[in-house]
Amino acid sequence: MPADNYHAAALLTIERCRKLATFSEEDGATTRTFLAPQMHDCHRQLSRWLEPLGAEIRIDNAGNFHALYPASAVHAPRLLIGSHLDTVPNAGAFDGILGVVVGIALVESLHADPRNLPFAMEIIGFSEEEGVRFGIPFIGSRALAGQIDAELLARKDSRGISVKAAIESFGLDPADLANAHLTAETIGYLEFHIEQGPVLEEMNLPLAAVDAIAGQTRMEFTFTGRANHAGTTPMHLRRDALAGAAEWIGAVEEAAGETPSLVATVGQIESKPGATNVIAETARASLDVRHRDDPVRAHAVSKLLAAAKEIAVRRNLSLKCKTLLEQSSVPMDARLTEIAEKAIECAGRKPHRITSGAGHDAMVLAQRVPAAMIFLRSPGGISHSPEERVEVEDVAKALETGAHFLDLLAASRIIQRGASSKAAQLKENE
Amino acid sequence: MPADNYHAAALLTIERCRKLATFSEEDGATTRTFLAPQMHDCHRQLSRWLEPLGAEIRIDNAGNFHALYPASAVHAPRLLIGSHLDTVPNAGAFDGILGVVVGIALVESLHADPRNLPFAMEIIGFSEEEGVRFGIPFIGSRALAGQIDAELLARKDSRGISVKAAIESFGLDPADLANAHLTAETIGYLEFHIEQGPVLEEMNLPLAAVDAIAGQTRMEFTFTGRANHAGTTPMHLRRDALAGAAEWIGAVEEAAGETPSLVATVGQIESKPGATNVIAETARASLDVRHRDDPVRAHAVSKLLAAAKEIAVRRNLSLKCKTLLEQSSVPMDARLTEIAEKAIECAGRKPHRITSGAGHDAMVLAQRVPAAMIFLRSPGGISHSPEERVEVEDVAKALETGAHFLDLLAASRIIQRGASSKAAQLKENE
Repeated sequence: MPADNYHAAALLTIERCRKLATFSEEDGATTRTFLAPQMHDCHRQLSRWLEPLGAEIRIDNAGNFHALYPASAVHAPRLLIGSHLDTVPNAGAFDGILGVVVGIALVESLHADPRNLPFAMEIIGFSEEEGVRFGIPFIGSRALAGQIDAELLARKDSRGISVKAAIESFGLDPADLANAHLTAETIGYLEFHIEQGPVLEEMNLPLAAVDAIAGQTRMEFTFTGRANHAGTTPMHLRRDALAGAAEWIGAVEEAAGETPSLVATVGQIESKPGATNVIAETARASLDVRHRDDPVRAHAVSKLLAAAKEIAVRRNLSLKCKTLLEQSSVPMDARLTEIAEKAIECAGRKPHRITSGAGHDAMVLAQRVPAAMIFLRSPGGISHSPEERVEVEDVAKALETGAHFLDLLAASRIIQRGASSKAAQLKENE
Repeated sequence: MPADNYHAAALLTIERCRKLATFSEEDGATTRTFLAPQMHDCHRQLSRWLEPLGAEIRIDNAGNFHALYPASAVHAPRLLIGSHLDTVPNAGAFDGILGVVVGIALVESLHADPRNLPFAMEIIGFSEEEGVRFGIPFIGSRALAGQIDAELLARKDSRGISVKAAIESFGLDPADLANAHLTAETIGYLEFHIEQGPVLEEMNLPLAAVDAIAGQTRMEFTFTGRANHAGTTPMHLRRDALAGAAEWIGAVEEAAGETPSLVATVGQIESKPGATNVIAETARASLDVRHRDDPVRAHAVSKLLAAAKEIAVRRNLSLKCKTLLEQSSVPMDARLTEIAEKAIECAGRKPHRITSGAGHDAMVLAQRVPAAMIFLRSPGGISHSPEERVEVEDVAKALETGAHFLDLLAASRIIQRGASSKAAQLKENE
């Protein structure tokens, strides 16, 4: 397909994302959480674009949108391509949605210029990824991976409505979630997603293949000293919890700066009693540490723990630490990622690999099928905001890369060998 | 008076403080704010102790308790001695109240062993010092200094009751606040008060003369950077407002440690958006700086301002600073403080001078009459807490010091010269 066509397809893709952004729970802003009534409009609109292509459309009982574009062979393997359809409150138009709409454009291009691929394509639009409505993310992809349990179904939103009740009132059957499960034909999952960070822009690259979703540790550190009068307590007789926490925040920043690709953040802090004229008795600070390699992250966390202990002992403070989340790194599939990287190169751009610091649906699916992700540059690194954008040329390059990905996959040995072994594995796991 | 008698008088003084602590707005805790109904009980109890001594008792229209123990001469000068009768919520038994009850013990001792002092003594129990009910402190001593204006009278408490209405419902006349004003006979004010800090305990001293009430600057510093995803934003591309504020808190502590007697405190901090996985866009921190010498404090404040600016520029943050309070240091009267120091020495204890880091009634009265303060050691530095204590022996030494103070004052030239000039000055100011 000539470059002009990719450009036109990119413009259409962006327009479609903006169209979907109008299906919102809020006037004048884009907010579309798990199974909100506006998700029906979203599904209808996707169907309107996909039905002319001969795609078979269904909504599974977890509210995920599926559109199967069959291959010529009856039992052909199947490539899943997509992302999520829900948004954060007051969202942009591209986070998640772009990955679904790019999938549609790839099917359209294939339909216009049939190439007889040896695999079917299934566009997937996950019902939930952001965790907004029920405080738990990835409900859509968890359903494909068979990970929706009774506890999750019973979980309630802020209005007291359970996941189960939400599914029912959307017109679906929570008793039959098996119809969402991955099928044995699925040989892989490809997700296009905006980077939501500043790295590609900084490197002046439109696209990158994702090598892994970074592992993550979330902790809470509480330093406790003694509240005292800020006017009557000399500096050398203080046990100032906030001064201790502040020193530790400096140590966090320093440690992260010393370890390549490590990010460590203190985003939340609270001092008590929290008065201008009272020395802080307690200071509670959050910690978020992420890295591609779990041992590197574990080492950093233990170093920051040791730093906090040393500061507490030296300042005569006590220290309490609580781990809130400990999530291992999830590598993307090596062969699919290699194909993604080669596809970027075929599209005339420098291949590059990047680690995702944020979680994505691919993280959940990677537990069951080979998964790959391709990031598009985020102008200004901005996301989760109405100002979230994509460059038209980057989307054009993504579409070109996607077309090459399909061809390279068709030519690879994954189809023959990978499919059957993966299918066998899936059956074993069921 | 023999030491045994001082010990007995100290036990009685402590018992009286504990008795007054039972007059409370709250069951099971001591809370007595400006003109609370329980202040009537407090006044009645003080009267019961003072009337047998022949003291003339009155409540002025600002609710201050006065008990005049006359001298033999009719127009004798007058020494004011006392402190405040109100408390913070869930208070201890000694903050303020001790200074009034020590005054009563001094009059009692004088009454039992008359010495024909050339001045009258007026016990003063201020109605308000803590600023709890109306958010403005020193209402009682401001009334003596003639500083109650219409704005203050109109100020409302949390229930919408004005100062004026509170005075009326206590049975007093807010239109005639002049009856609270200092009279021309008053030659000085002496206030015993617990230190509310750890210094005397650290130095193993029961008492110290106060040389000044420290000046104070209160500010608010707001660092602003950019909110970003904690997982997707590399360390070198961050503009982390909280990391900047933390570095500055370290600079505050360091600067205070370098300047003798300076205290500088960050007691309050808030980061926004304040989420574990979001880099802080803003961090707002309080600053409280105090020192005896105003130029030293001013220099420290400008140094901390420069440090904040340097940090903000280096980290690409913006900075906003707001000054909330700028209060000059108030020196105590040199001659009275010298007498206080000598009195401590006469009581057999090492004389020592200390700067008060907290505000006291003496700070307001010092604007109109020579004022002196004597601090008693605070065990554990604890105050504003039910655990607030005094040592019996320290109170005994305070009573002995008070007796010496009266004798030294009687022998000094302040009575003859100071009184008349001060009286003339007071008249001029009226």
